[in-house]
Amino acid sequence: MRSDTDHFRCHIAGGIATIALDRPERKNPLTFDSYAELRDWFRDLHYDDDVRAVVIAPNGGNFSSGGDVHEIIGPLTDMSMKELMRFTRMTGDLVKAMIGCGKPIIAAVDGVCAGAGAILAMASDMRIATPEAKTAFLFTRVGLAGCDMGACAILPRIIGQSRAAELLYTGRSMRAQEGADWGFYSRLLPADELEGAAQDMARRIAEGPGFAHMMTKTMLAQEWSMSLEQAIEAEAQAQAICMQGQDFHRAYHAFVAKQKPVFEGD
Amino acid sequence: MRSDTDHFRCHIAGGIATIALDRPERKNPLTFDSYAELRDWFRDLHYDDDVRAVVIAPNGGNFSSGGDVHEIIGPLTDMSMKELMRFTRMTGDLVKAMIGCGKPIIAAVDGVCAGAGAILAMASDMRIATPEAKTAFLFTRVGLAGCDMGACAILPRIIGQSRAAELLYTGRSMRAQEGADWGFYSRLLPADELEGAAQDMARRIAEGPGFAHMMTKTMLAQEWSMSLEQAIEAEAQAQAICMQGQDFHRAYHAFVAKQKPVFEGD
Amino acid sequence: MRSDTDHFRCHIAGGIATIALDRPERKNPLTFDSYAELRDWFRDLHYDDDVRAVVIAPNGGNFSSGGDVHEIIGPLTDMSMKELMRFTRMTGDLVKAMIGCGKPIIAAVDGVCAGAGAILAMASDMRIATPEAKTAFLFTRVGLAGCDMGACAILPRIIGQSRAAELLYTGRSMRAQEGADWGFYSRLLPADELEGAAQDMARRIAEGPGFAHMMTKTMLAQEWSMSLEQAIEAEAQAQAICMQGQDFHRAYHAFVAKQKPVFEGD
Repeated sequence: MRSDTDHFRCHIAGGIATIALDRPERKNPLTFDSYAELRDWFRDLHYDDDVRAVVIAPNGGNFSSGGDVHEIIGPLTDMSMKELMRFTRMTGDLVKAMIGCGKPIIAAVDGVCAGAGAILAMASDMRIATPEAKTAFLFTRVGLAGCDMGACAILPRIIGQSRAAELLYTGRSMRAQEGADWGFYSRLLPADELEGAAQDMARRIAEGPGFAHMMTKTMLAQEWSMSLEQAIEAEAQAQAICMQGQDFHRAYHAFVAKQKPVFEGD
Repeated sequence: MRSDTDHFRCHIAGGIATIALDRPERKNPLTFDSYAELRDWFRDLHYDDDVRAVVIAPNGGNFSSGGDVHEIIGPLTDMSMKELMRFTRMTGDLVKAMIGCGKPIIAAVDGVCAGAGAILAMASDMRIATPEAKTAFLFTRVGLAGCDMGACAILPRIIGQSRAAELLYTGRSMRAQEGADWGFYSRLLPADELEGAAQDMARRIAEGPGFAHMMTKTMLAQEWSMSLEQAIEAEAQAQAICMQGQDFHRAYHAFVAKQKPVFEGD
Repeated sequence: MRSDTDHFRCHIAGGIATIALDRPERKNPLTFDSYAELRDWFRDLHYDDDVRAVVIAPNGGNFSSGGDVHEIIGPLTDMSMKELMRFTRMTGDLVKAMIGCGKPIIAAVDGVCAGAGAILAMASDMRIATPEAKTAFLFTRVGLAGCDMGACAILPRIIGQSRAAELLYTGRSMRAQEGADWGFYSRLLPADELEGAAQDMARRIAEGPGFAHMMTKTMLAQEWSMSLEQAIEAEAQAQAICMQGQDFHRAYHAFVAKQKPVFEGD
């Protein structure tokens, strides 16, 4: 997996890829280039076996300020519909690539987390944050709709339909404590403990059964719009596949031997 | 937009329509006439450009006691299946009209909020309440099922499947604090501040980008049963439409000029 | 309805069936036999009119430790795919049978509630627990995926997508207070009050309109993946059916006579 990325920071060690947007002096805005490179990176990750978990980290005390006003919003106001669709599909493809990459993603949120930055946090599998985290789906503030990159589908499933509607209609910041109370963040930590905690979570996941985690991630997305009957049949198939995996056998033999299983991801 | 309604109160000012059932001495029950007129009023609202937000207000300290026992329940016990379906579809059409009207609806709940009254609150986009609000989906108390006007679909998305099941099976009142903790209400306020707060929320929405708000409301409903992939593509299209809107351009130019954008809803 | 079950305890009285796994010395694991018998018992319940509510009780201070390591996990590691699918479909069929039985199910959770035991609690309609309840979807600990018996579909609807993802990826125990805060448990009670409270809830449901409760349960499952429009039409039909039921008429006449309705379930 490439870590020599051009438009965001990437560090890979111990099966964990840690990435961060990298313009801290501007609170880490997204640009056309970083959108495209993130999309391609997450797409490549689907085929990678060495990275088993991803952390999206803040940089300089902020997570991301979202689409840059001068580098993104300005140009968008001059585009044709065909060009606009190319942009909105690129941003949607980033979310699809995050969901389809097969590895759990943990967002560590600090400071500003706004617009497309809030979407990156939302499209991760789990989130932790500092008390200073201010996550805002502020599309309405620039005259746009709340339906951006999947927000009207995903946010209600995380925090409930009514809280999601309020955030999307008003564009207001969700306070860190609200995010924790509403199930957006798994927990809050002081800023100096945030990245360590994210790495701990990622390491526990990376030590787990990677193929089975991929299946969990796949099914959490696949079953989204299935009927209950369909979902139960789909899980019967998916879990039967995992039962022929080596990690299941390793766990059983370790249990019988009163040892801790060592998973290898197959 | 008509404000000379016969079976409920309606006041329109500053882009905000404030409506309320109007039989406070009976805690504002719904009748065949008010159901039908509300349905038609919300259907007309879909084509209206002047009203940009709706407040459903309490009246005399209560929101609504739901379908009147003597005027609705009694007659229903004498109806044929064809007549019953005409009634249940009329009530369902009211919820469809509320969802399809394109304008955010804020319910301000005080006192009794029961049966079809609870449905009116539930089918709104956001809710605030007083500590005295008692919302009860009490269909089971009159021998009916919890599946009334969309409750088995909508309530679980707002407060979670298990809490919804408990309220629907028991018919018990949800206490105001429960409603706030569970995400049904955005917040609780003393009775004398309730309507002012609802008007403030409505004004902030009415000052926002109306076309984009309509798109947010549309997609929050449309994406309900879409797959994640479908939802992300649908948002790419919906947001591209909004990016060709004038309010997006107004926001950008205001930002560049360091001014506050003035949205006009196109 | 049979109460002379071989592989779990079953007691039927006053319209309430109380069942419990029955190997308290092993914390009540599930076996191939108890899975199959539970599945068949809940399937039969669909056709039964005498049982109107079900309580799944703990036994000896624990709810269930899930699939037994020696009696289930060991044999699974030696099975062909055809045999594995027979097993995963049997376990999924148990959840389908619980959802399809038409009677509200209350799980009373104490102590260990793990793996397939956690699924039994999750697939119930409502749950109460003691402060000692430790519910863990620990499939990942044995090298399997979180998608077991419907967990990736059902758990997110009860506690939200993010909290469900965390529990399924880590396999950690959900603490009782977390379960209450997140809407998994309706409430927490001391161990010596748990079963009495579950019986009280079941009795209130058993005294309610049984046919209408069956319809509520049916629609809570059916509408899961419907569009909003479809759900509202489906409820118009379902409620019209209930309005021709005798319990609706009984409730109306009792109200007019200022009496408490006595429901008979038709």
